[in-house]
Amino acid sequence: MSDRLDAVLAHLDATHDAQIARLFDLLRIPSISTDPAHDNDVHAAAELCAAMLEDSGLKATVHTTSGHPMVVAHSNGPADGPHVLYYGHYDVQPPDPLDLWNAAPFEPVIVDTDGPARIVARGAADDKGQLMMFVEALRAWNEVGGGIPVRVTVLLEGEEESGSPSLDPFLAAHADELRCDVCVISDTGMWDPNTPAITTMLRGMVYLDVTLHGPSHDLHSGMFGGAVVNPLNELAKVLGDLHDSDGRITVDGFYDGVYEPSESQQQEWKNLGFDESAFLAEAGLDRSTGECGRSVLERIWSRPTLDINGITGGYGGAGAKTVIPAEASAKFSCRLVPGQDPDAIEAALRTHLQQHTPAGCRWTIESHGANPAIQVADESPWLEAAQYGLERIWNRRAVLVGCGGSIPVVGSFQEILGADSLLIGFGLDDDRVHSPNEKFNIDCYTGGARSHAAVVLALAEAGGA
Amino acid sequence: MSDRLDAVLAHLDATHDAQIARLFDLLRIPSISTDPAHDNDVHAAAELCAAMLEDSGLKATVHTTSGHPMVVAHSNGPADGPHVLYYGHYDVQPPDPLDLWNAAPFEPVIVDTDGPARIVARGAADDKGQLMMFVEALRAWNEVGGGIPVRVTVLLEGEEESGSPSLDPFLAAHADELRCDVCVISDTGMWDPNTPAITTMLRGMVYLDVTLHGPSHDLHSGMFGGAVVNPLNELAKVLGDLHDSDGRITVDGFYDGVYEPSESQQQEWKNLGFDESAFLAEAGLDRSTGECGRSVLERIWSRPTLDINGITGGYGGAGAKTVIPAEASAKFSCRLVPGQDPDAIEAALRTHLQQHTPAGCRWTIESHGANPAIQVADESPWLEAAQYGLERIWNRRAVLVGCGGSIPVVGSFQEILGADSLLIGFGLDDDRVHSPNEKFNIDCYTGGARSHAAVVLALAEAGGA
Repeated sequence: MSDRLDAVLAHLDATHDAQIARLFDLLRIPSISTDPAHDNDVHAAAELCAAMLEDSGLKATVHTTSGHPMVVAHSNGPADGPHVLYYGHYDVQPPDPLDLWNAAPFEPVIVDTDGPARIVARGAADDKGQLMMFVEALRAWNEVGGGIPVRVTVLLEGEEESGSPSLDPFLAAHADELRCDVCVISDTGMWDPNTPAITTMLRGMVYLDVTLHGPSHDLHSGMFGGAVVNPLNELAKVLGDLHDSDGRITVDGFYDGVYEPSESQQQEWKNLGFDESAFLAEAGLDRSTGECGRSVLERIWSRPTLDINGITGGYGGAGAKTVIPAEASAKFSCRLVPGQDPDAIEAALRTHLQQHTPAGCRWTIESHGANPAIQVADESPWLEAAQYGLERIWNRRAVLVGCGGSIPVVGSFQEILGADSLLIGFGLDDDRVHSPNEKFNIDCYTGGARSHAAVVLALAEAGGA
Repeated sequence: MSDRLDAVLAHLDATHDAQIARLFDLLRIPSISTDPAHDNDVHAAAELCAAMLEDSGLKATVHTTSGHPMVVAHSNGPADGPHVLYYGHYDVQPPDPLDLWNAAPFEPVIVDTDGPARIVARGAADDKGQLMMFVEALRAWNEVGGGIPVRVTVLLEGEEESGSPSLDPFLAAHADELRCDVCVISDTGMWDPNTPAITTMLRGMVYLDVTLHGPSHDLHSGMFGGAVVNPLNELAKVLGDLHDSDGRITVDGFYDGVYEPSESQQQEWKNLGFDESAFLAEAGLDRSTGECGRSVLERIWSRPTLDINGITGGYGGAGAKTVIPAEASAKFSCRLVPGQDPDAIEAALRTHLQQHTPAGCRWTIESHGANPAIQVADESPWLEAAQYGLERIWNRRAVLVGCGGSIPVVGSFQEILGADSLLIGFGLDDDRVHSPNEKFNIDCYTGGARSHAAVVLALAEAGGA
């Protein structure tokens, strides 16, 4: 098998420029799933993905949903081998604020000054660059490896950045077609540029969009100021009181059942030699903030949070306007950890807001989804196979890490398809995902494509193919 | 003297239709000072005012400024009498939103259904109707009273609705010509349709525009949340803590020197029978909010405030975005009362913010101006004379009221001309100034013109003319 893999890896090296050109074609489509103005772009990205999968030797279908399309592609492998499901998403976050980009977000470029060569574009790392790595690995197996060594299904979603409303119904409706032995999800990061990582803990999320309503219309702050409720004053108060002076969240029941990582787990994290200063420097900060008595890794991997993601209210233009606004709004979200029930947390947040309703005001509260944290078994044949494949490429074992973000699809695969996931991704902490000037290092891309080529073979071997 | 006043009042009654026709001529000019497209209209309104003042027996000049023109008119009175300066403004607010007007905003009409007869047009109350009342009173004195009984200067501004940028420089440059014993400003309201009012307290203002900077760029709340500072969380905390649980502002020194109205003043306000429910109903509210232990009138007339006028930060679009923003901004303003030094308050606010800078953050702070509260002595020969004049017309004493808003020209007259102002106006709370369907009641207009005729005589007598 090793000769075939060598040929596949050599082919990946030889076709690098063509791979980057194909990725650029996908990056040029502003497939912003949260913005209805881009519905056609999201659809165009789905069609392009399907065409590239067909061109890679898979049989692809674009399925319509009540939201954005699902791309599903199949390739039959050895009858006695395992069935591997690959997942990625072709939609992206909005690029705002546009004025902070050094180049247009949907005109990808390779930049090689001030650091390693990298692709700069919205979606370069999250997740178009990552999904194209396994697509290209499968293409190379088809072109020079004698075919993909396992039965493969590829599932590409167009709603990941807008809460995946169609995913669970789609999985349920197509469970027979999608049922598999193991899933490979390429949407996470490496430990460092030379060390691959497999993510075994992921935080969940609850996201609320709240508006505090006060006067029936905007008021003049001279005529009314001091005697009437100001929703902006009150919203700031309620939101400002959501953390205590120790950085803990003040909502009743918020920490109920929170899982504390085992001693050995915590020791392993300590042994990673995490460079706190470098992590903070990525954010332009020189100190950490957060829950007292917790390390940075604990704070981002195993502790729940509450972050305000947006506040809107009153006058936001140039100069001064002396207005008391009729209402004020905020978006905020909690990252959840194993042991927290998302529905219970959402209910606790709603109860807290209602109990702290400022006199003369009322809330409207909208949910943008609630999903639990994920914990993947850290011992399994698939995990061991992935380790073996990664070690062939990187000459070192992958580290098992947590992830502060949410990848709800992992929970959906567990619940609906009954399959565990291998979270093998090649991003870096400084990729600026969701931010201006998002990038993906060329070395990460090429190492990632080679890794997927090796891992698919290792999975085939572990599954008896 | 009483015979002369009787003749003047009779003449005002007899020429009512001609007065309304002249006011309509002025209302037909869309003199919107904030909109450069209407520069010619603003100039035309200045010329018409000057012509009407000439026609009323004064010597009028239209002065150009770097902005809109100043109209100045003089009439010599008895050499030993006082010199009274009348102020009004001939510019108006934009009429938007146009679709909410029942008739064209610059085609004045008299409406007499569903309420008292009233002039409906942009500027009917603010301030063309109010300035024409004293112009017509002076005309009547000239035509049938044997001449205006005091030396008079009229100053009409065309930039009041756009921040009066030329006013202070003009006052300074023409101080010798404009210096006077007392100013009469006709731009405020009556207590109710049957009770005149003199405004003796006006709140000042400090307005700040602040931005809290944290991370160097927007961050993903999954990757970083819990371990890095979130400027929106922190801004909400700082702003939310600006009031204590008694509704008092927590900034050190904020209440230093705040003037407490005398017992008799407070008693007088209590006696006014202010309808709190009706006031709150105007705002669509059923209860008052604010500083503990203070009445609504105290809160809006004699207590300082801090209102957030706008907050901007993070994601404000549809749906969810899991961002920790690099920065968050707020606009907020304090209404100031007599005894507070605007510069000291601004400094105290800046000190407070700096002292409460969240770890890992920094502020940028911009000022949008600071002006002091105004207190007109509530005992003076001029005030007493105005009371006397008003009582002759309305058969009751004017009530002395506060005003929650700012009329900066009062401070300019005090500082630059060294003259106190009498704020005698005839608007009503339901005049919809700055809003669609602005109106001015006919009874207010005729009572106001008669009042100015009586007050100018009373001022002459008080000043020894």
